[in-house]
Amino acid sequence: MIPTQAALDEAMIRVKPLIHRTPVMTSTMIDDICGSSLYFKCDNFQKGGAYKIRGATNAVLQLSEDQKAKGVATHSSGNFAQALSLAARSLDIHAYIVMPENAPKVKIAAVRDYGGHVILCPPTLADRESTLKKVIADTGATAVHPSNDTQVILGQGTMTLELIDQVSGLDFVIAPIGGGGVGAGACLACAYHAPSTKVVGAEPANADDAYRSLQTGEIQPSVKPDTIADGLRTQLGDKNFPIIKSMIDEIVLVSEEKIVEAMRLVWERMKIIIEPSSATSLAVVMTKPEKFADKKVGLIITGGNVSLDKLPF
Amino acid sequence: MIPTQAALDEAMIRVKPLIHRTPVMTSTMIDDICGSSLYFKCDNFQKGGAYKIRGATNAVLQLSEDQKAKGVATHSSGNFAQALSLAARSLDIHAYIVMPENAPKVKIAAVRDYGGHVILCPPTLADRESTLKKVIADTGATAVHPSNDTQVILGQGTMTLELIDQVSGLDFVIAPIGGGGVGAGACLACAYHAPSTKVVGAEPANADDAYRSLQTGEIQPSVKPDTIADGLRTQLGDKNFPIIKSMIDEIVLVSEEKIVEAMRLVWERMKIIIEPSSATSLAVVMTKPEKFADKKVGLIITGGNVSLDKLPF
Repeated sequence: MIPTQAALDEAMIRVKPLIHRTPVMTSTMIDDICGSSLYFKCDNFQKGGAYKIRGATNAVLQLSEDQKAKGVATHSSGNFAQALSLAARSLDIHAYIVMPENAPKVKIAAVRDYGGHVILCPPTLADRESTLKKVIADTGATAVHPSNDTQVILGQGTMTLELIDQVSGLDFVIAPIGGGGVGAGACLACAYHAPSTKVVGAEPANADDAYRSLQTGEIQPSVKPDTIADGLRTQLGDKNFPIIKSMIDEIVLVSEEKIVEAMRLVWERMKIIIEPSSATSLAVVMTKPEKFADKKVGLIITGGNVSLDKLPF
Repeated sequence: MIPTQAALDEAMIRVKPLIHRTPVMTSTMIDDICGSSLYFKCDNFQKGGAYKIRGATNAVLQLSEDQKAKGVATHSSGNFAQALSLAARSLDIHAYIVMPENAPKVKIAAVRDYGGHVILCPPTLADRESTLKKVIADTGATAVHPSNDTQVILGQGTMTLELIDQVSGLDFVIAPIGGGGVGAGACLACAYHAPSTKVVGAEPANADDAYRSLQTGEIQPSVKPDTIADGLRTQLGDKNFPIIKSMIDEIVLVSEEKIVEAMRLVWERMKIIIEPSSATSLAVVMTKPEKFADKKVGLIITGGNVSLDKLPF
C-alpha cells in the first residue's frame, strides 16, 4: 500500500511545529564545476544534526495515549538513536535505545544527552534484535524502525516537501538510498507535489543492494557493505521498496573516491559539515554530469554527524 | 582621524551590491553550555570564505578611473590575497598579489582562480615589502593594506552593521583582533548605530600585541606570535588603533586550548566550518562566562578557510 497524498500532507502539518524548516544553500563555484544549478537541502542543520528527527517525530506523534505512556524502543548505532530520543523527549515519552557495545562513545553520550535510556548489547544484528525484543517484553514499549515504517517514511518525506516548496521547477531531486526511508519519502513528495521532478537515488557502489533490488524487482540483502557512507549500509524494507520501485527514476552508483571528493568540495567551498552519506547526492552529479547538465537539481543533504577524529582527509 | 558615521554608511551602500549579506546563526545547545544567547555572524559564508572581501571591495571602489586602469597590489599569504583578487575581478581591475614562496599551494591556486596575478618572493617580511614596492613601481598599481587602511576598516565595519540590523538589543559584539581592521570596523558600527552595545576584542594569549597596545596606549609589535589563529598574528596600525583604543570595552585573551575547544564545538554542534581565528570570539565567552551570563552576544565569525589536511583534532 503506497501512502496517500493526504497521509503525507498530514505528516507535514503534524511534525512542522517540532522540527526545523532547514535552509536551502547554493554555491556558484560548485555549480560552475558541475555545470548544473544545485540546491542543497541542508538537514545537517536539523535538530540532532540529521533528517531522522522528522520520521521519528511523526512516528511518535502517531502513538495512542496508552502507547505513549509505555514509550518507544529501537536498536540503532547511529543517528536514529539520537533522533528517536530527541523526538520522544520533546513529547515526554520514554525512549529505550539498544546500542552495540562498540558504538562510538560520543554517540552513546549523545543519546543519553537527548534523554534516551541506553541498553548496551553485543555488536551483532542477532544480539541487537533479541535485546530489543527483551526490552519490548519488559516495558511494553512500541518498536519504531528507522526506515521501514510508514510513519517514518512520511516524516522523512517532509524534507523533500520543504525543498520543492523552497525551490520551484526542479528537474531532479537526488536522495541517498540506505534503508530506503528518505528515498521513499522523496518519491512520495515529488509524485504528489512536483510530478515533473524526477527522483534519483544515490548509492555507494560498495553498498549497491538497492540498485540490485531495482534491477531484480526484489529486495536484495546488503552483503558486506564496505563504504565510508555509514548511513547507507542498510537494506530496503517491504514498506519503502514498493514506493521506490514504482516511483524512482533510477539509482546511480558512486565510488568511494567520488563520495570523499564531493564531501571535501562541500566542506571547502560551502563551509558546511556534511556526512559521507550526504555527499553521495553531489557525487551522483559528478559521476553523471551529462544527465544533469544545465538542470535544476535538488540535493538531499541528510546530515552532518561525522567524527572529527576520523576524517577521510 | 576617526571616520564619520556618514563614511561608514556610505561604505555600506557602496559594497552592498557586491557582497553577501551573511546569515546569523544560533545554537540552543551552545547557548546552554555558555549560559548566554549567542548570535554567530557567519562571514565564513561570505564570498571567498571570509569577511575580507568587504574591505577589499570598498577600497577598490574608491579608486579613481586612472587608478583602476593601473590595478591594485598587496602582499598577503592568506585570505586578503583572495579577497582583493575577487574584488578587483568583479570590477575588471588587475590585482597583483605578492605571496611568499612557502605559502600553501592551495592558497596560491585560489588566488589565481580568482584572477589575481601572483608574484612569488622569499618568505620574509622585508622581501615581501621590497617585492611589493617593485611591483608598484613597475605597474603603477595602488597598494591596499589588509587592515590599516581607512576604506578597508569601513568595509569590514559592514559586517557588524549587518549584525546589529539582524539582531536588535545586543549587549556585546565580540570581534577577533588581528591586524585591527575588523575590530575597528565593529567599534565604528556599534558607536554609530548601537551605542549601548559594547565591543569586546578576542585575542590569542600567544599573540597578545593588541592587548599590550591597549594597556600601554601605544602600538606594540607582534613578537613571535605562536597561535593556531593564523589570521591574528599581525599587529595593529596607526589607522585602526586610535579607533580601537577609544571605543573598545576590553580585549580578552584566550588560550590555544580554548580556541580549539570553541572551534570543535561549533563544527560539531552547528555543522559549520569556521577557522581558528573566528573561534576566538566564542573562546572569549567560554573564558569569561560571568561577564556574558544571560547576555545577548554577537560573535563575529570572520571566515572558514582552513586546511582540511592540517586540522587540530
